[in-house]
Amino acid sequence: MTEKIPYKIYLEEDEMPKSWYNMRADMVNKPAPLLNPATKKPMSAEELEAVFCSELVQQELDNENAYIEIPQEIRDFYKMYRPSPLVRAYCLEKKLDTPAKIYYKFEGNNTSGSHKLNSAIAQAYYAKKQGLKGVTTETGAGQWGTALSMACAYLELDCKVYMVKVSYEQKPFRREVMRVYGASVTPSPSETTQVGRKILAAHPGTTGSLGCAISEAVEVAVGTPGYRYVLGSVLNQVMLHQSVIGLETKAALDKYGIKPDIIIGCAGGGSNLGGLIAPFMGEKIRGEADYRIIAVEPASCPSFTRGVFAYDFCDTGMVCPLAKMYTLGSDFIPAANHAGGLRYHGMSPVLSQLYHDGYMEATSVTQTRVFEAAEQFARVEGILPAPESSHAIRVAIDEALKCKETGEEKTIVFGLTGTGYFDMVAYEKFHDGNMDDYIPTDEELAKFRLNLPKVD
Amino acid sequence: MTEKIPYKIYLEEDEMPKSWYNMRADMVNKPAPLLNPATKKPMSAEELEAVFCSELVQQELDNENAYIEIPQEIRDFYKMYRPSPLVRAYCLEKKLDTPAKIYYKFEGNNTSGSHKLNSAIAQAYYAKKQGLKGVTTETGAGQWGTALSMACAYLELDCKVYMVKVSYEQKPFRREVMRVYGASVTPSPSETTQVGRKILAAHPGTTGSLGCAISEAVEVAVGTPGYRYVLGSVLNQVMLHQSVIGLETKAALDKYGIKPDIIIGCAGGGSNLGGLIAPFMGEKIRGEADYRIIAVEPASCPSFTRGVFAYDFCDTGMVCPLAKMYTLGSDFIPAANHAGGLRYHGMSPVLSQLYHDGYMEATSVTQTRVFEAAEQFARVEGILPAPESSHAIRVAIDEALKCKETGEEKTIVFGLTGTGYFDMVAYEKFHDGNMDDYIPTDEELAKFRLNLPKVD
Repeated sequence: MTEKIPYKIYLEEDEMPKSWYNMRADMVNKPAPLLNPATKKPMSAEELEAVFCSELVQQELDNENAYIEIPQEIRDFYKMYRPSPLVRAYCLEKKLDTPAKIYYKFEGNNTSGSHKLNSAIAQAYYAKKQGLKGVTTETGAGQWGTALSMACAYLELDCKVYMVKVSYEQKPFRREVMRVYGASVTPSPSETTQVGRKILAAHPGTTGSLGCAISEAVEVAVGTPGYRYVLGSVLNQVMLHQSVIGLETKAALDKYGIKPDIIIGCAGGGSNLGGLIAPFMGEKIRGEADYRIIAVEPASCPSFTRGVFAYDFCDTGMVCPLAKMYTLGSDFIPAANHAGGLRYHGMSPVLSQLYHDGYMEATSVTQTRVFEAAEQFARVEGILPAPESSHAIRVAIDEALKCKETGEEKTIVFGLTGTGYFDMVAYEKFHDGNMDDYIPTDEELAKFRLNLPKVD
Repeated sequence: MTEKIPYKIYLEEDEMPKSWYNMRADMVNKPAPLLNPATKKPMSAEELEAVFCSELVQQELDNENAYIEIPQEIRDFYKMYRPSPLVRAYCLEKKLDTPAKIYYKFEGNNTSGSHKLNSAIAQAYYAKKQGLKGVTTETGAGQWGTALSMACAYLELDCKVYMVKVSYEQKPFRREVMRVYGASVTPSPSETTQVGRKILAAHPGTTGSLGCAISEAVEVAVGTPGYRYVLGSVLNQVMLHQSVIGLETKAALDKYGIKPDIIIGCAGGGSNLGGLIAPFMGEKIRGEADYRIIAVEPASCPSFTRGVFAYDFCDTGMVCPLAKMYTLGSDFIPAANHAGGLRYHGMSPVLSQLYHDGYMEATSVTQTRVFEAAEQFARVEGILPAPESSHAIRVAIDEALKCKETGEEKTIVFGLTGTGYFDMVAYEKFHDGNMDDYIPTDEELAKFRLNLPKVD
């Protein structure tokens, strides 16, 4: 059997998923509903439609349907860069001298450099279908903004991106890629919105945060006719779209009769992790199979491992609905390290509920150890990984080394979310010994919890 | 039939080439031999072995064997990123509203971002096999240096890269990627070599050139025990290794009964073009099939279209052997535009002979038109192309538009050599209208020809 397993498993076109899988349909405890921040009542579809496209609102609220068909137009777009390969990390295994079998699902072979495109094209498609002129969004590290720009260019939709100011300044090339795809990119906080002006007045010289950029993008979407807001992570709809990662992974493994023991993903807002684990989690919930599922987050922004499970604001400006999730508090700003896209204060409500209910584990890792794993991986597997993805690499290596000690031949699957071409400043800091490994103290974390909204 | 052709054609592992194809075996007029610059006599194997690994010298001189087996170790490395996909550019065709069928062979899905890895691993492998400690090389735009660093990291060989100073300064991220892979990178010209010091004395403040970096790398290789020099283009051995591109392309087309009418590649030193066209050229020479084969070069560095076919130095320092090739003169330095890796003054002797003998066409394009094509391609096909590759895109689009006029359903195949992530400064110049479209005058080109060496 092993002889026939290719080094990289690519599904054939007719083996690719035709529907997304919605974990919520199988969940015993459904994720808590989004709440109106004023009334603290569950957001109705009508309320949500002021912010999001109608069809996406249906997906956001759908806790019933396990499978939702992927429209043909989106499947056609997926063909541009999917299937993504499931790669057996033979070289890494050899280097580690481990009996473990390591596979990674590589989502970086597209110009956005990450898995973000899977949901970007879906959200842009529904906006286009609804006859909208354009969409607004925020971006931190830049992958989501790039992905959305690509999707909008393809569908000829306008795309307004609020980019966290520090990234806008430190990553001019990311900005330029979005420009290639015709997006307008504004550093956040900006003078173009009420909330931006308010934040600038309160914190002159601030370099921005994801929560702040979200507030600006939402304000513009709600206030501009023909526009809606789109978000690259956290939301239920994003977990749904990203399930294409896990469905492909499972199909590829099933094709060769491989059963994973451990599934590992990095977690910021949860978009990749939620997508990667989706069908496996479904089996686990239904009692059909068991897997160890591990979320890996930066020690500097430890939502799962040191946050609280509570209703919180999704943004700094407090204009968005409240979500029940593992959170560090909406004011939390992590240390200026390079966890990149994993710096969000909250976590997907779906994943939060699953973690709370004991279906998955979480662990946190420091940046230097992450980049050590990144470099080790790059040298033997050839791919220059994104810092985000390297959190998963770190734990995959650690688990493989445990197998070396015990002699167990476990099968480990991890999500390699993207490439690090735009993160060379971080690699440089690592090489120069300037990586910031700061871990927030309990006192610091406690401080940010004081601002959690009161919900009965 | 068409129904069954996948959007992206990936060969199965057992369909991948097991041998490289050596065009020279089928060429009617063989490429002229390299000459010793002092004696003007053909370089013997012994002389070449002072510079190159022994097995590569054999490949360099081999005009007889049509197929040379790819060692298993290299084939294992190829599996890390090969087969590369042959993609049907459906979206581009639709956008152009052309009856032409456009395919591109995409070589950018690896961390070096280009096809250069195909020869880098081969050259590093033979160096390792010979028991060497390390290799030296030069890099301009940085793709070759990155590729070689990756190959050397994999084989645990030392790698010393001389990087053209202007690129070293303008592309710190490229430099940093090489550092991830453990290479030492020196800006050229440097004080570390005799030839570097000489050039610096003659031209203080020079930002360097490829020809100058070659001289430095060769000097270090020849003067350091256990080291040899490796080169990413121009050489016969490089054309041989790169034939894997064309062999895969042909296997993929043959699998679905597709016969191309036009094959297009960008041309700097000729590494991608020579590889892409190899098996097609073989058929053409042997009279088994006919194809239009088009080399595309930058108007700023027009070796084929405005150079002369003559013996010339391969480097600025005049320490390398003489090669008979289309050349602009070894002192030629193109305008400071962003043709990137296509700025070399000469051209592969193999391709030069084939062009001279009428087996292929050549055309040149200006930078603005290249970037227009690049952006158009990026928006519909998703991939952000390298400036080099975009020369081929430009002509592929032009040919497809001609088909639109005539109604012909031609099949066009072009080589998409790599990605443009490290070239965003060039894209920025294009967007800001600052692209330099300078074309050298006849008088300027004539001046550089005065320094051609005299060979009887």
